[in-house]
Amino acid sequence: MGGGTPDPSGRSVLIQLSRLRRIRDMDTDNDTVTVEAGCVLQDVQSATRAVGRLFPLSLGAEGSCTIGGNLGTNAGGTQVLRYGNARELTLGLEVVTAEGEIWNGLRGLRKDNTGYDLRDLYIGSEGTLGIITAATLRLYPLPQASYAGLLAFAGLAEAVAFLSVARQRFSATLTAFEIISAEVLRLIGQNRPQFSLPVNPGEAGVAWYALLEISDTHSHQNVRNVFTDVVAQGVEDGLVIDAIVAESEAQRQHLWLLREHEISAAQNVEGPNVKHDVSVRISQIPSFVDEVVERLRERFPGCRPVIFGHLGDGNLHFNVSAPEGQDAHDFMQWEQEIHDIVHEAVRVFSGSISAEHGIGQAKVSLLRNHKSAVELDLMLRIKQALDPHNLFNPGKVLQPVLDKSQMIVSTR
Amino acid sequence: MGGGTPDPSGRSVLIQLSRLRRIRDMDTDNDTVTVEAGCVLQDVQSATRAVGRLFPLSLGAEGSCTIGGNLGTNAGGTQVLRYGNARELTLGLEVVTAEGEIWNGLRGLRKDNTGYDLRDLYIGSEGTLGIITAATLRLYPLPQASYAGLLAFAGLAEAVAFLSVARQRFSATLTAFEIISAEVLRLIGQNRPQFSLPVNPGEAGVAWYALLEISDTHSHQNVRNVFTDVVAQGVEDGLVIDAIVAESEAQRQHLWLLREHEISAAQNVEGPNVKHDVSVRISQIPSFVDEVVERLRERFPGCRPVIFGHLGDGNLHFNVSAPEGQDAHDFMQWEQEIHDIVHEAVRVFSGSISAEHGIGQAKVSLLRNHKSAVELDLMLRIKQALDPHNLFNPGKVLQPVLDKSQMIVSTR
Repeated sequence: MGGGTPDPSGRSVLIQLSRLRRIRDMDTDNDTVTVEAGCVLQDVQSATRAVGRLFPLSLGAEGSCTIGGNLGTNAGGTQVLRYGNARELTLGLEVVTAEGEIWNGLRGLRKDNTGYDLRDLYIGSEGTLGIITAATLRLYPLPQASYAGLLAFAGLAEAVAFLSVARQRFSATLTAFEIISAEVLRLIGQNRPQFSLPVNPGEAGVAWYALLEISDTHSHQNVRNVFTDVVAQGVEDGLVIDAIVAESEAQRQHLWLLREHEISAAQNVEGPNVKHDVSVRISQIPSFVDEVVERLRERFPGCRPVIFGHLGDGNLHFNVSAPEGQDAHDFMQWEQEIHDIVHEAVRVFSGSISAEHGIGQAKVSLLRNHKSAVELDLMLRIKQALDPHNLFNPGKVLQPVLDKSQMIVSTR
Repeated sequence: MGGGTPDPSGRSVLIQLSRLRRIRDMDTDNDTVTVEAGCVLQDVQSATRAVGRLFPLSLGAEGSCTIGGNLGTNAGGTQVLRYGNARELTLGLEVVTAEGEIWNGLRGLRKDNTGYDLRDLYIGSEGTLGIITAATLRLYPLPQASYAGLLAFAGLAEAVAFLSVARQRFSATLTAFEIISAEVLRLIGQNRPQFSLPVNPGEAGVAWYALLEISDTHSHQNVRNVFTDVVAQGVEDGLVIDAIVAESEAQRQHLWLLREHEISAAQNVEGPNVKHDVSVRISQIPSFVDEVVERLRERFPGCRPVIFGHLGDGNLHFNVSAPEGQDAHDFMQWEQEIHDIVHEAVRVFSGSISAEHGIGQAKVSLLRNHKSAVELDLMLRIKQALDPHNLFNPGKVLQPVLDKSQMIVSTR
């Protein structure tokens, strides 16, 4: 990282960064790539694909988001089930510290037990402990064949039970298990007539769908056989009601379009809604959803929960839309109360109020209700140890805790 | 964790722990198990196998080592290539802090982006930041079939090239790629006549062997076909000289006996040797080994490098034995100089002087030569933030840095 001494505000460091959006090193024998923080995620995906490797981080914003942002927020996405979050995809970092010094942690080693794990402290800290300027990332074999299908379930309990079967049978070839409620599909049918739904979401007895995908380095035929075999077992066991399988790449992409584009498009037609990004243990998902839906419908009769997400990670995008006929903007007056209902259930179920989106400013006031005093104190000590003058991304993550703690800390 | 207030020395906490060596919770739908720190690794393996799940951490000491120790040292072992180190196998921790408080981080979530990653800070900190009292661990599907073989290579460059092929073709079914030098096999042949070597290590042109294993949830026949197919490709490409494959479970276990028991048994016959546990990028392994062997032989003509380890992780156990005929105890007078030669090469190759064994006391004086001042300063700040009175495992990991820093820190 360039020559000049960074000024204390960190500004000169940032200016240098804008010129360094590039890939520093590709090491196929080590299965790693070292990139600048300013690299766009899609550029990393393309550059590694060109040498026959997969960088598995994959999310809607991949065409514009940067690796620095992905690591700062420990991004998730659609392949976490198989490859983990951004954290698990990172071997090392280069970071500018609060002293304006550079920590070079880009050794690219898979094993290194020589002291504290600084890497994972910076990942997910949302820029509040230091500035990530580069990263060494893990690469994987490029799958040769993918196979996807949309499966219908009577309830979430059956979907969770079948996820367990699918994990056992598919093992590491299971790369996605995304759920979408039948209500969400009906909303798409209603608001997005230009999109051809692959199933009839009015089917009796079906309340949930799951988009399953398996990916393998073996032949397509082999992958297809295993897929249909396991789905048939699910039907036989009474877990799966029925299933459609994508028989072409175009059909597979159509299923992903449904998941990644049509849900939000269908919601947008109606105006704003109250969004949540929550996680609980996978085993708790059915009772969590029952509980929250019941509380919401008690308080706001007719409100429409729009629920979809990464069942394989225990992560739901749990949005709440206005009752049919009610103005969406009017409904938003209840936003805070709806958040409170959902987040209180998250607390009771020992879940997370931000599974993959981080804290930022939006959730900064919630942390005190969702973390123990012990955990907040530990985080505060780390913030003060690494950024004693609160230079980095002030106002984010820990700010209210910092504000409240000034006196407590100074007397320690 | 029990009722009484722990006393400031932490002693009462430790006494409670000795009574709590048990499994707290098994959640097969979430694929997690929550265990006390005092649980023996093998007990965790057995308990999870009983419910059809794999806890993949696997190492020689598994019959006696505890989960607390495994996490404190971020243990590695023979399946890191597929499943990662202890760090990657852990979803959450319960920790006693320096204030005698308990941080409960056992939510068992796969995604939770709400603040700093305390979990990974404690893992690998060797008990110097807090006392790990329990952990929630990830479980995996139990493989239905494993297949292993011993492959012969002309050199490490060929082994690294074939590892790359094997990763692409086997993908996540590749669970081990362990290398052993032909010299090591000859030493076993000489010192352990009771062990029947599966190959003739005197074969012309063979300098290295690799123990490969693939494990899958598919049928044994399928696994065997893929294995022999990929090995045949390696031979055809001129990377593999020849190979034996284990045609029975007994033969497979015989190969693992060679790797896990016979190497150290053969070394022990000769008395002590100078041991190292190092890692470099996988791509750098051939030049690293060349360089170190050359330097060692220059300085100590006839000395015998005994090299084996986890090639798939870039991790070598690089031991050095006395020249034939020289007394092993005599040779140990050069221990420090031998360490210096090996560790200097590690520094030049940007590797790690402790890939999986940690720092402890033995390597505590080396840290200053192998970490930048920036990194040491960051680690020191964390130590002082979380354990300001140096209560936890004093003398380990950072001690000399702590000693030297007292004045610097107090003037900050």
